[in-house]
Amino acid sequence: MNAIALLDYAGVAVFAATGALAASRKQLDIIGFLFLAGVTGVGGGTVRDVILNVPVFWVLDHTYVLVCAAVGVLVFFTAHRLESRYRVLLWLDAIGMSAYAALGAYKGLAATGSPVAAIVMGMLTATFGGILRDLLAGEPSVLLRPEIYVTAALAGAAVFTAADLAGMHEAVSSVLAFSIAFAVRGGALRFGWSFPTYKGRPGRRPEDIP
Amino acid sequence: MNAIALLDYAGVAVFAATGALAASRKQLDIIGFLFLAGVTGVGGGTVRDVILNVPVFWVLDHTYVLVCAAVGVLVFFTAHRLESRYRVLLWLDAIGMSAYAALGAYKGLAATGSPVAAIVMGMLTATFGGILRDLLAGEPSVLLRPEIYVTAALAGAAVFTAADLAGMHEAVSSVLAFSIAFAVRGGALRFGWSFPTYKGRPGRRPEDIP
Amino acid sequence: MNAIALLDYAGVAVFAATGALAASRKQLDIIGFLFLAGVTGVGGGTVRDVILNVPVFWVLDHTYVLVCAAVGVLVFFTAHRLESRYRVLLWLDAIGMSAYAALGAYKGLAATGSPVAAIVMGMLTATFGGILRDLLAGEPSVLLRPEIYVTAALAGAAVFTAADLAGMHEAVSSVLAFSIAFAVRGGALRFGWSFPTYKGRPGRRPEDIP
Repeated sequence: MNAIALLDYAGVAVFAATGALAASRKQLDIIGFLFLAGVTGVGGGTVRDVILNVPVFWVLDHTYVLVCAAVGVLVFFTAHRLESRYRVLLWLDAIGMSAYAALGAYKGLAATGSPVAAIVMGMLTATFGGILRDLLAGEPSVLLRPEIYVTAALAGAAVFTAADLAGMHEAVSSVLAFSIAFAVRGGALRFGWSFPTYKGRPGRRPEDIP
Repeated sequence: MNAIALLDYAGVAVFAATGALAASRKQLDIIGFLFLAGVTGVGGGTVRDVILNVPVFWVLDHTYVLVCAAVGVLVFFTAHRLESRYRVLLWLDAIGMSAYAALGAYKGLAATGSPVAAIVMGMLTATFGGILRDLLAGEPSVLLRPEIYVTAALAGAAVFTAADLAGMHEAVSSVLAFSIAFAVRGGALRFGWSFPTYKGRPGRRPEDIP
Repeated sequence: MNAIALLDYAGVAVFAATGALAASRKQLDIIGFLFLAGVTGVGGGTVRDVILNVPVFWVLDHTYVLVCAAVGVLVFFTAHRLESRYRVLLWLDAIGMSAYAALGAYKGLAATGSPVAAIVMGMLTATFGGILRDLLAGEPSVLLRPEIYVTAALAGAAVFTAADLAGMHEAVSSVLAFSIAFAVRGGALRFGWSFPTYKGRPGRRPEDIP
């Protein structure tokens, strides 16, 4: 199995695990675990393939669906052992996001030949699985957390695209991109790295606005 | 009209009615009824067709849009007569979900020839209209309710696929699949059937986690 | 630049600004501004192109992505000057929605030749960017606000379609459609125009229903 395929399965599997962990936090039944594992595992890649107008990856190859199902079952029987499922969810999400950032840029570049499209597809598909998971599970969106998130996906996608354009082998580009994205997001989780946020006052509630 | 076409219109119409009932619970105006009826009625099928990369069904045949509009108007003028609109919504949702599970499996099998893809498409499209409705209307997701839901869609899609592979006529397979899905979901609504849920503690709120 | 292209860029740019304003209300960092500006700016058009099965507009032409990025940066540095960012968001949303209603109907008619599909695509894509923005930013959906919203999009799309079928030049049809949609939504924002809403009681919370 080459580096791209490995990143692909790894990204799907760890995102599936975060979906199943969200299901455990909501105390769903085992089918709920499978459903959230599946949607989170393949959601970002589905949006990517639909926008690029290429066949959706898991319709072509069912291994992905079976991987998500296996992960869902595994988490159902082991999640109670974790001290803090939400912390584990965030770290697995970081791995999945980093893998998807590299792979999204790879697929975007292959389908369009355009660096801008590659970077946007990498960023979008790296973050979309997590966004879908949080929407469906009714969790606060990972997008709105204070530490750096989308930036890590953007960095990974940009590194893949730059390395590929510089003529590096796709395995090298993928590993570089994954490492950069994970370093940025991991640092944000471990050390609370954040950019200066918008300095103004927080929004008032819409109903208070004349 | 054959069994497949009947299931199709029935699924769209009753999902449209659940969208309109959600609009009535949120006290929207008549155009809000039409909008939620339309999105809920055709949402799951739109996702199905986009993922299968076949033309979206309601773009080809406008009858579906007109059915949703008619149902939206009808519910606008009659919803106040219902004792509990949310109970009616749940039961109509059960009918629509069962119809869509059979039809999604049928379309998935026709487009891909793969049983795994057929089962996943049946389950996905049966549940997605309701998920979209709840997201747009700001209702708690039907996905997170304690009684069995996704399982019923999964059972219906699996029964259709098995019956079709066993060589049964598609009308027979559809009726079987619809009946099984509705029996499972109906039992869950009537008798509170549920699987043992994940036994661990509920998730802490993210902000309480160090 | 012709009227259609102008409407197109204007719609994307002002929707991007509303996404960035939502980011400022949530006190996100600059990448959060770019992300919400991008998703809101191109979200409705992406759904439109995917449903019509035509190439997604911003994958073909990266100018749109760069416009969203520029708007995101601009808003990041200027939003604190606004007295009420939510009011500005609503007015910009009205402009973007009106532009998208005309353009969605134009693209829907061009791709399908069907007036019903044109009107539905105009209404859908005019409202979808704002719906996505509110979902991702955790804001109450613009869809559920009491004043007229979807109706304005519907009116704009219907006017474009009627004018086009009556043989008017597409520039005239677009300007007419934009003006009608903006007049309806602007009147609703300024004077609180609303339809009689559904007269029944509001929905009870699902957990209170036996």
